[in-house]
Amino acid sequence: MNANTFGKAYCLTTFGESHGAAVGGVIDGCLAGLEVDKSFIMSELARRKPGQSTLTSTRNEADEVEFLSGLFEGRTTGAPIAFIIRNIDAKSSDYDNVKDLYRPSHADFTYQMKYGIRDYRGGGRASARTLAPCVVAGAIAKQVLEKQNIKIVSSVTKLGQKACHGGFSTNEVEEILSEYKMTNDTVGAVVHCEMQNVPVGLGEPVFNKFHAELAYAMMNINAAKGFEIGEGFHAAEMSGFECNDLFVKENGKIRTVTNHSGGVQGGITNGENVTFNVAFKPIPTIMQPQQTVDVQGNEVEYNIEGRHDVCVVPRVLPVVEAMAAMVTLDFIMLKNINRL
Amino acid sequence: MNANTFGKAYCLTTFGESHGAAVGGVIDGCLAGLEVDKSFIMSELARRKPGQSTLTSTRNEADEVEFLSGLFEGRTTGAPIAFIIRNIDAKSSDYDNVKDLYRPSHADFTYQMKYGIRDYRGGGRASARTLAPCVVAGAIAKQVLEKQNIKIVSSVTKLGQKACHGGFSTNEVEEILSEYKMTNDTVGAVVHCEMQNVPVGLGEPVFNKFHAELAYAMMNINAAKGFEIGEGFHAAEMSGFECNDLFVKENGKIRTVTNHSGGVQGGITNGENVTFNVAFKPIPTIMQPQQTVDVQGNEVEYNIEGRHDVCVVPRVLPVVEAMAAMVTLDFIMLKNINRL
Amino acid sequence: MNANTFGKAYCLTTFGESHGAAVGGVIDGCLAGLEVDKSFIMSELARRKPGQSTLTSTRNEADEVEFLSGLFEGRTTGAPIAFIIRNIDAKSSDYDNVKDLYRPSHADFTYQMKYGIRDYRGGGRASARTLAPCVVAGAIAKQVLEKQNIKIVSSVTKLGQKACHGGFSTNEVEEILSEYKMTNDTVGAVVHCEMQNVPVGLGEPVFNKFHAELAYAMMNINAAKGFEIGEGFHAAEMSGFECNDLFVKENGKIRTVTNHSGGVQGGITNGENVTFNVAFKPIPTIMQPQQTVDVQGNEVEYNIEGRHDVCVVPRVLPVVEAMAAMVTLDFIMLKNINRL
Amino acid sequence: MNANTFGKAYCLTTFGESHGAAVGGVIDGCLAGLEVDKSFIMSELARRKPGQSTLTSTRNEADEVEFLSGLFEGRTTGAPIAFIIRNIDAKSSDYDNVKDLYRPSHADFTYQMKYGIRDYRGGGRASARTLAPCVVAGAIAKQVLEKQNIKIVSSVTKLGQKACHGGFSTNEVEEILSEYKMTNDTVGAVVHCEMQNVPVGLGEPVFNKFHAELAYAMMNINAAKGFEIGEGFHAAEMSGFECNDLFVKENGKIRTVTNHSGGVQGGITNGENVTFNVAFKPIPTIMQPQQTVDVQGNEVEYNIEGRHDVCVVPRVLPVVEAMAAMVTLDFIMLKNINRL
Repeated sequence: MNANTFGKAYCLTTFGESHGAAVGGVIDGCLAGLEVDKSFIMSELARRKPGQSTLTSTRNEADEVEFLSGLFEGRTTGAPIAFIIRNIDAKSSDYDNVKDLYRPSHADFTYQMKYGIRDYRGGGRASARTLAPCVVAGAIAKQVLEKQNIKIVSSVTKLGQKACHGGFSTNEVEEILSEYKMTNDTVGAVVHCEMQNVPVGLGEPVFNKFHAELAYAMMNINAAKGFEIGEGFHAAEMSGFECNDLFVKENGKIRTVTNHSGGVQGGITNGENVTFNVAFKPIPTIMQPQQTVDVQGNEVEYNIEGRHDVCVVPRVLPVVEAMAAMVTLDFIMLKNINRL
Repeated sequence: MNANTFGKAYCLTTFGESHGAAVGGVIDGCLAGLEVDKSFIMSELARRKPGQSTLTSTRNEADEVEFLSGLFEGRTTGAPIAFIIRNIDAKSSDYDNVKDLYRPSHADFTYQMKYGIRDYRGGGRASARTLAPCVVAGAIAKQVLEKQNIKIVSSVTKLGQKACHGGFSTNEVEEILSEYKMTNDTVGAVVHCEMQNVPVGLGEPVFNKFHAELAYAMMNINAAKGFEIGEGFHAAEMSGFECNDLFVKENGKIRTVTNHSGGVQGGITNGENVTFNVAFKPIPTIMQPQQTVDVQGNEVEYNIEGRHDVCVVPRVLPVVEAMAAMVTLDFIMLKNINRL
Repeated sequence: MNANTFGKAYCLTTFGESHGAAVGGVIDGCLAGLEVDKSFIMSELARRKPGQSTLTSTRNEADEVEFLSGLFEGRTTGAPIAFIIRNIDAKSSDYDNVKDLYRPSHADFTYQMKYGIRDYRGGGRASARTLAPCVVAGAIAKQVLEKQNIKIVSSVTKLGQKACHGGFSTNEVEEILSEYKMTNDTVGAVVHCEMQNVPVGLGEPVFNKFHAELAYAMMNINAAKGFEIGEGFHAAEMSGFECNDLFVKENGKIRTVTNHSGGVQGGITNGENVTFNVAFKPIPTIMQPQQTVDVQGNEVEYNIEGRHDVCVVPRVLPVVEAMAAMVTLDFIMLKNINRL
Repeated sequence: MNANTFGKAYCLTTFGESHGAAVGGVIDGCLAGLEVDKSFIMSELARRKPGQSTLTSTRNEADEVEFLSGLFEGRTTGAPIAFIIRNIDAKSSDYDNVKDLYRPSHADFTYQMKYGIRDYRGGGRASARTLAPCVVAGAIAKQVLEKQNIKIVSSVTKLGQKACHGGFSTNEVEEILSEYKMTNDTVGAVVHCEMQNVPVGLGEPVFNKFHAELAYAMMNINAAKGFEIGEGFHAAEMSGFECNDLFVKENGKIRTVTNHSGGVQGGITNGENVTFNVAFKPIPTIMQPQQTVDVQGNEVEYNIEGRHDVCVVPRVLPVVEAMAAMVTLDFIMLKNINRL
């Protein structure tokens, strides 16, 4: 089954394990003639790169993208765009101690149960490194969206017990994460994302609703545990009177006074900003001994060494944006299907 | 595009508008030889039926299901199962006054923008009545799951400002909704759902994660605005130490001490109960005048008459369960693909 | 699995058995705003209807199409178009004698092996009657194609040992089939089909080639055993010098001098007429005793009574055209995906 | 759109152009735990390699396969298997003269019309070299099938005007091709393929018929113009009495006396050998001047130099087998979906 493919029109198939030869992807369905800005792709990858601060993993991922196909003289040809990112600084021996046990709240156990075999090195296919190809494909999608003036911005609005409606600054994030790091613990986060100038009419009415695809995209990001659009869970506390978005005419255009809906009504974008939140659980790798079982079923204590991220943010922000970009581009392309 | 099809192995294609001839569906991929319990299907539909109390719409939907194919002598044959539910008590004239305007927070505007035409009667394809076929297909899925001892139960845990961790009783729900009804307003809700005895190993690791498909399924239900699995948004407030599910061996079986994960780790079920919440916004049809615009773009006041639901619950519960059943059955079937 | 769905953009899901309640289909992806000409649909169905001559089955299929959804005031709304054709004149008792045996070269045996159960009445799902929904969906596709001036015409070029390059007349077909009928035998046929004014650029280069999808479509028609595009099998006998289509400029347009390619080069239409042939085997139901085995594996003699078709032609012609129309419309719609 | 993906359960996505960095593929859905025999993959690739004789292109394709993912300690893990074959000996300058014109019966014109841009070097994505990834994925599929005792063998039964029912020997093929080579011409061919021990019950009854998917697979091979199963086009000349396959019981197993059906009845395999033919047109690159037009639409004479294949055979044989292997494995895997 095509379980590693995302999208219907702008399709990304990803592959690769954390400590294998490479991670990479194949983009099928990118429109032809697009000039690809590789430096933008690199800058997006850099946002996801570990070792950016003292709070993220220090693995030195060069993250050099090699494009293997689909480009000719710098432009897309309509053929599939394959790309790989070699795994350079992968020290598999670091993971010898996890070979025979199941780390708590990691995917070791479920992979072993599902497949009867697993590449335990660095989490294998379950590593967050497998999201790098999403960032690459998302960066290309962003370039297409940009031509339509569509912008995607994300921020961190919650970090553990601390919340900041407008989004924390980079310094604030660093500071809060430092505190958790000192306790040898990790922490969850909520990411807020906003898409501006999304055209009206994207999404399908029954299944394939715009926000359903968005939810699907976000929940496929490692560590994501919740998704909400517009008022989301808060809408459950509201009355219809409070939550309804009234229509008005503004400069000759039909708009809504409020945007509790988050830009989607009946599964279809209404031209307002698309706003959504994604909740992430704390990274399960903590610098404390934990009880677990080994592959034989014996109870053992698990201790980890080395340096690990304290939180999925800030590195997950470009991933959230990339997935949102792919969903949106997908729907823009699909919208054309029914126009002859 | 197959935008009205749900599922990969157990596939449901739905059709129908609120006030057209019928709503219905085609189930493709149901295993052969299954004895279909039609009375159970009817009882599930009855749970979704309007007119159950003074708080729900009084439209008398007979909801008689006619099976057109795929059954032979009471058993499934492996051929597609088509079924229809005729729309009997549909008074289209009730909707003459909405023909020319866009109801706030309904799909009238987005449909018109997307298609340039809409069946305005009763919301057309955007009506919650289009969920009845999901209940039918979900009821059949439940019958298959039951043979594997898998159970799905749902409850209402939030109604506006009121919350009940263990789920409100029917009387409590009625009481709370009555209050909103008296104010001519509507209210949102959170539905909690739990799936018991889900086998380990369902779901795919990168895309098609179990909870991503679940999120997709739930967010396609009318009025759904949020989804969370396990601790969900609460996980964002937790530390890794608090949120990790430690493995233990219990009666010879590997289990987790806690279930913050909600039964899914790395996108794959781990054998614990799958637990999730869905947030629904208040029904936008309120018994109060609201400002809106008509199809010409003139600002008008919109008044509705008749009887309408105060909240999506309790009628949405069988829909939540039906979608969850279909997702789970789908993954059970897909799991067999990779076994020769 | 969606094994009863055809198409990617213009999707038809069919259902129904020969002697069940109805056959029917759901068209998902038809563009909105199309005025549907129901009389044209009926006339296409009439071409496939049995009882047209003394040489075809005399079952009186009323073939009244009831549209259940997706149309509003005579126009498509973009919502799925469901339709059913009730099975009226179905005498199931005629099939009591085939209940317990496997008819030679029919699907009785393979269905039983695959599903462990089968609706034996009239061939059940394997009946050619299941093609009626294809004719309905193809007729709507033809209406869309007609607006683009695309025409599809088919003819019978081979009937057993007799061949007619330009296509037999109706009288000639009747005459030849009468001869086979008198011998209580049936006969195979080749259908030639030509699509005019197909735009350049349809089809995908590697998989999803235009003629590969066409082959797939045709080979899904009951009794089809062969497909060829352009010169087809004859191309195997030719040299490159003979078979190449040289480019010229004609009235400012790039054309080919010959059309050995059948309108497709590298999987993509080149603007010339698309020409292809489909070979059909003789109908396996012959008016002679045949050796076979029953479901217990005992060897038995099988005798059939009643009136049956002598050949799939002429009734299969509208089916061939319908499938070709759906393939072409599908690619026209998909072509728009990559245009922003 | 996923236009470069083949298969539903055992999915191959291919990428790469003849003169780009590499060709390659991603196999998604290969069962876990399979020991991959790389030397067998290399031997299959060697069968497709150019430069095998004086009659095939002399481009020295090292065709070293590098596996990038999905394998761990020599075994499949259930994760996608990505592999690349670098393009080493690609002299792009050889193609400078075709940059500005449309070679007759090649895909230059249709690509340009479809995409507005093309990688003209060596045919780009339209090159037969893009079939190498199919051979790799097919070789792995063959390894899985072999465990089930399924064998696939192919032979050349027609070469231009010459036919050999049992298949030409290698020497005969060489001899016939030499004759065409001396005339600076090329020639078409028919390939016969037989699959032994295919289990009963593969394929779907209405769409997704076994032979329809096989036809689709074969027609996607470069230069394929025709497909037939069993008697194929010959069936059109037969009567029902001649063409029917009578059932008998043989050693306790239900078999057919003859196999005119080619192992498929009603779209589903019946346990007999699956037999089919594929017709290929002559390679359009001939060593003679040909009339054509350039990209500006001017009529020009086109002359080619260098060494090119005279016929798609024998190099296409492993491709035919690979595609057949993938189709069969796909259906074997899908068959499990409906078994709980």
